[in-house]
Parts: sequence; C-alpha cells; structure tokens
Amino acid sequence: MTAPASFNPQAFRAALSTFTTGVTIITTRGADGEPVGVTANSFNSVSLNPPLVLWSLAKSALSLPAFSGNKHWNVHVLSADQQLLSGRFASRGEDKFAGVTLDQGINDTPLFKDCTARFQCRTAFTYEGGDHLIFVGEVLAFDKTDLPPLAFQSGQYALATCKARETLRLGSEPPPECSYTEDLLGYLIGRAHYQLLDALRRLLHSQKIDEYAFFVLSVLCIRDNLTLEEINQFVSYTGREVTLSMMLFLEKQGCVVAEKQFGVLRFLLTATGREMSLEQIALAKAVEQDVTDKLGASDSQILKVLLKRLIRDTDPGLPDLWAPAQPPVSAQA
Amino acid sequence: MTAPASFNPQAFRAALSTFTTGVTIITTRGADGEPVGVTANSFNSVSLNPPLVLWSLAKSALSLPAFSGNKHWNVHVLSADQQLLSGRFASRGEDKFAGVTLDQGINDTPLFKDCTARFQCRTAFTYEGGDHLIFVGEVLAFDKTDLPPLAFQSGQYALATCKARETLRLGSEPPPECSYTEDLLGYLIGRAHYQLLDALRRLLHSQKIDEYAFFVLSVLCIRDNLTLEEINQFVSYTGREVTLSMMLFLEKQGCVVAEKQFGVLRFLLTATGREMSLEQIALAKAVEQDVTDKLGASDSQILKVLLKRLIRDTDPGLPDLWAPAQPPVSAQA
Repeated sequence: MTAPASFNPQAFRAALSTFTTGVTIITTRGADGEPVGVTANSFNSVSLNPPLVLWSLAKSALSLPAFSGNKHWNVHVLSADQQLLSGRFASRGEDKFAGVTLDQGINDTPLFKDCTARFQCRTAFTYEGGDHLIFVGEVLAFDKTDLPPLAFQSGQYALATCKARETLRLGSEPPPECSYTEDLLGYLIGRAHYQLLDALRRLLHSQKIDEYAFFVLSVLCIRDNLTLEEINQFVSYTGREVTLSMMLFLEKQGCVVAEKQFGVLRFLLTATGREMSLEQIALAKAVEQDVTDKLGASDSQILKVLLKRLIRDTDPGLPDLWAPAQPPVSAQA
Repeated sequence: MTAPASFNPQAFRAALSTFTTGVTIITTRGADGEPVGVTANSFNSVSLNPPLVLWSLAKSALSLPAFSGNKHWNVHVLSADQQLLSGRFASRGEDKFAGVTLDQGINDTPLFKDCTARFQCRTAFTYEGGDHLIFVGEVLAFDKTDLPPLAFQSGQYALATCKARETLRLGSEPPPECSYTEDLLGYLIGRAHYQLLDALRRLLHSQKIDEYAFFVLSVLCIRDNLTLEEINQFVSYTGREVTLSMMLFLEKQGCVVAEKQFGVLRFLLTATGREMSLEQIALAKAVEQDVTDKLGASDSQILKVLLKRLIRDTDPGLPDLWAPAQPPVSAQA
C-alpha cells in the first residue's frame, strides 16, 4: 500500500486508469457563439429522479469559461467508430469542429451524429473538485442508438464484450475432470474453423475440388502467376504441401494453366478458375455476414482483433500474401 | 430526441448504461464497528493534485448512515474474477462479508484482497445529487495489481480488450483492393488454427500418425469404447470421415484395440494410445500457455468466450463429447 508521503502522480494515474470507462465528448457554445468541445471520460450518472449526470473539467482547460458561462451542454457517449473524433477533441488543436456535421441541440448547442447515446443537459450544480470543477447537469433530453460504444482502459481505447456467466459451456452438462477439455484454445479454434468451413466444403464438393485446392485458388486469385514453390510458401503452413500432380489435376479441371516462363513453370488462374474462386469467396463472405449478425458487429470486431494478435504472436514467418507483388525473380535475372 | 415530458425512466437508464464503466465495491465501518460495503459503478477520478475521486450513493441506501458517519472508506476496483463479490455487495443480503478475508485499511476500514486497484480515502466533500449523495474523497493511499479489471456495460458484466489502432494488419503493407482480404473471419480462424497446430503436427509426425488420428485418439481419451459410427459423430464435422482402415492402421500402430461386443465392433484406447494422446494434450496445453502469455489472461478469456459463442451459433448439432457417457446401446438391448 502506497503511503501518502510516497504519492507518485504517475502511479496514481495508472491505478485510476484501471477503472474502465466509456468515452464522451461534451460540447457547448462559447460566449462568442463558437462551438466548444472536450473529450472526457469522467462522465457518470448520478440520479434518476431528478435525472442528473456529472463530469469533471480541469480548471486549466481552455474551455472552462465556455462551460462556466453556458448552462446548456451536451454529453455524447462515443461509439466504437468515433475514436478519431475522441482524439481530436482530446487535443488542443484549432478548429476541432471542421468538417463535422452537427445536429442542433437545445439552446443551439452543438450535437454530434452517430453516437451511442446523447444527453442534453443544463447545469444544476458546479462543485469544487481540486484541480477540476465538477459539473452536475440535469438531463433535459436524451437519445440512444444501437452503435457499440467506445471504451477506455489503462490509457488505451478499448472495446467491451459481455462477460460469460462464469463458464459458457458448449454442451449441457458440467465438464467432468478431463485433461482435454473444451476450454482449450486449440480445440475452440479448430472447432470454429471446421464449423465455418462446413458450407464452403459443400460448395467445394460440387466444384469437385478439395479444401487445399481452395487454398491454392485463393492464393492465385490474389497473386497470379506463381511457381509451385511460391504457392507453397503461402499454403504450406496448413501442414500440407501442394504437389505438382495436385496442380496438374487443377489444370485438368480447367482452373489453372501451367506456363513455362524463362524456363520456370508458373501457374495462372483461368477464367473458370477465377469464377470458381470468386464463388468460394462470395460464400465465405455470406458465412461471415451470418456470423457477424449472430455475434454482433462489436464482438465480431473484437474477435478479429484478438485473432490477428494471436496470428501475429504465433506467426511462423509467413510471407505477406497481400503485399504488392514483385516481378518474378527469374524475369529480373 | 426524447423530450423531457416523455422521460421514460427505463429508457433513460438504458441510455446511461451504454457508458461503459468498471465495477467497484466501496467499504467502510459503521458506528457499531460492523463492516459495510456497497457495489458502485459511479466511481470516477476527479483531481490529481490534490488526489480526489468521487462516487454516488443512493439516499435510500441502508449504508448511507455508515458512509455519512465515517470519513474513511475504501474503493476497490474489482478484477474480472470478482464478479460474484460484486453481485453479493449489490444486493441487500445479510452478512455480505462472511468468508471474505480482509486486509486492514486506514482507521480499521475493511480492505479486500485480489482487486485490480484499491484507493483508501477520506471524505473531502459530500454534495447534493438528486436522489443520490455525491462523495468526493481525498485519496490517502492506493495500490494496484496486474489483474484484469471487471467492466460493466448495458446492464451486463463485461471485459474490455484493447482496441486496435484502426486496422491491425498482419502484413506490413496496406491491403490492396481485393475481394478476398485478410479481414475475413474465415481466413483468420483458419490461419490461427493451422498456426496453433504447427507444433502439434511435428509431434504427430514423430508419432507416425496424422491429425485425423489425433482427433480419434482425443475422442477415445475422453470417451472410450466407441463404434466407428460413434467416433464419426464426434469427428466428421472436420470434413473427413474416419474409415475402418484408418482404425485398423491405428490398431497396427498399437494405439487402439478393436473388440467385438454384442456383435458390434468397438474401439478402445491401449496404454500406448493413451500415452500418445496425453503427450499430444500436454503439448496442446503448452502451446495454449504460450499463447495466453502472449495475449494476456484477460484477452485469452475474451477470445475463448467469443469462440464459444461462435461455435454455439454455428453448431451443426454436434453431440456433447464431454457429456456423461451412456452405456452402449447394444448392451442395453
């Protein structure tokens, strides 16, 4: 326990920042009629009856005269997509409102669009709060959308996902003592992978190719004109090596064509192959849309962020499939 | 925009709850010396110099006399594992402190262990706040752990994960216009799956079996004595049917033994097979630990929660591998 004597402002700030918050921008209009706004995460609800909310503003803030002089101000609970807006109003830059389309709030105060929630307030009390002034406002009007809110934690923007009630089990029974449990990340990712692949597998079956051929076609759809070795650089992390006979089978199916260029065999997608690949991608996108609808946009985004971090953290050194293609090495020689 | 006249308390509460918060329990000691505590998410920081924090307490709260009478109280920013504690102190139950081990705070106030952060405060101001009283406390001491904090949003417990700076790309270049992008959930899950499988695949190679045999051994390790049909009920969602010849190959490898029971062929794990399976599981757990270390405990948990939701939402109707085994149907006949 830190004693008051050893109070370190940085450590104090770090301890405070463990408390998760949303992010708001609070706006008003200055005495000169100019719109004024400031990012604050010190917002909180106070009272339901009467409806009161509060937030704190640094006494050193340039916007203090505006908020002290105008009883009307609006709290915007920012949505996950409004991170840039948050950053803009957290800085001291000029003309923060440039290019922002506004609704008109009570008493002509500025109101942002596309927020998660908005509260139009009139100052009920201002209270002394050390180096800050506490504004308690009566809520005169409010509205709310379904946009997922932006969160803030430990000094970083965050997204919050609903915590499962203790253990979210897939099955209906409590798990017995078993060393291999469904709580293993490898199991969960594997099962999610195969379940998502299910619809695609049926399409591949009708196209008379397997999932490894799907990987090959996907790679060629992004980067055409590759050697077998180059294809394998992108595909072999799946644990299976693409062989020449697989490629010749795909040529027989009319998906690819093999061409000798500068003495090296390269594979190109045919019109048929591209069409098959696009059909596969369209299906994958439909599956994705379905999953996004089920999980919700915010949780889908969180899932993707975490998967990308996991992929980066366990990357065996795969080449970047989407990097601008280099001219073939043999052509440079 | 809702007009004051149509103020619906439920809608107001719903709009307020879109603002994400952490969860705190605030404790003190009553005039009778008994510990008192209440869950609050109205906590927030106010001032750095002097160090001030605030929270609001309903005027109707049973604990109001205790907090009004004792200038010393402690704010506990709860960790993700303290959800049950939060629920207990949010209710009006008797003896909330039963079984809770306490540290001793300033002036003998109760202090919980294993929180994300703790602030020991002395009331600096109490302010009028409608149906609540606002307590502003000077922070006399504080401490902080690395435990991930509990969050609260839209009426539910939540976990917050750091939001990626706009788009977290795996590769180094901005993605070109391509219909199949690395932002596709199916791609991300597939790539994560294969990357996590990498170490295991090398073990399987040394064990001279493939990943489908690994699935079979895992199933038998949890549920022994299955027919080929029963094994396939658990494995076929991977897109590959386990065949009799695969099972006979595993028998030849010494992993399983086939036994005719009531005229039906059933497969049992041998001691060798169990040992191989346990070796695989131990490796899977080591990989898991490594990933958890890299992602952090909180984000690993979020990832699992979201994968479980995805799996449930896309479940083709798989039987519960971990449900208590039924006696073989043929034995009941």
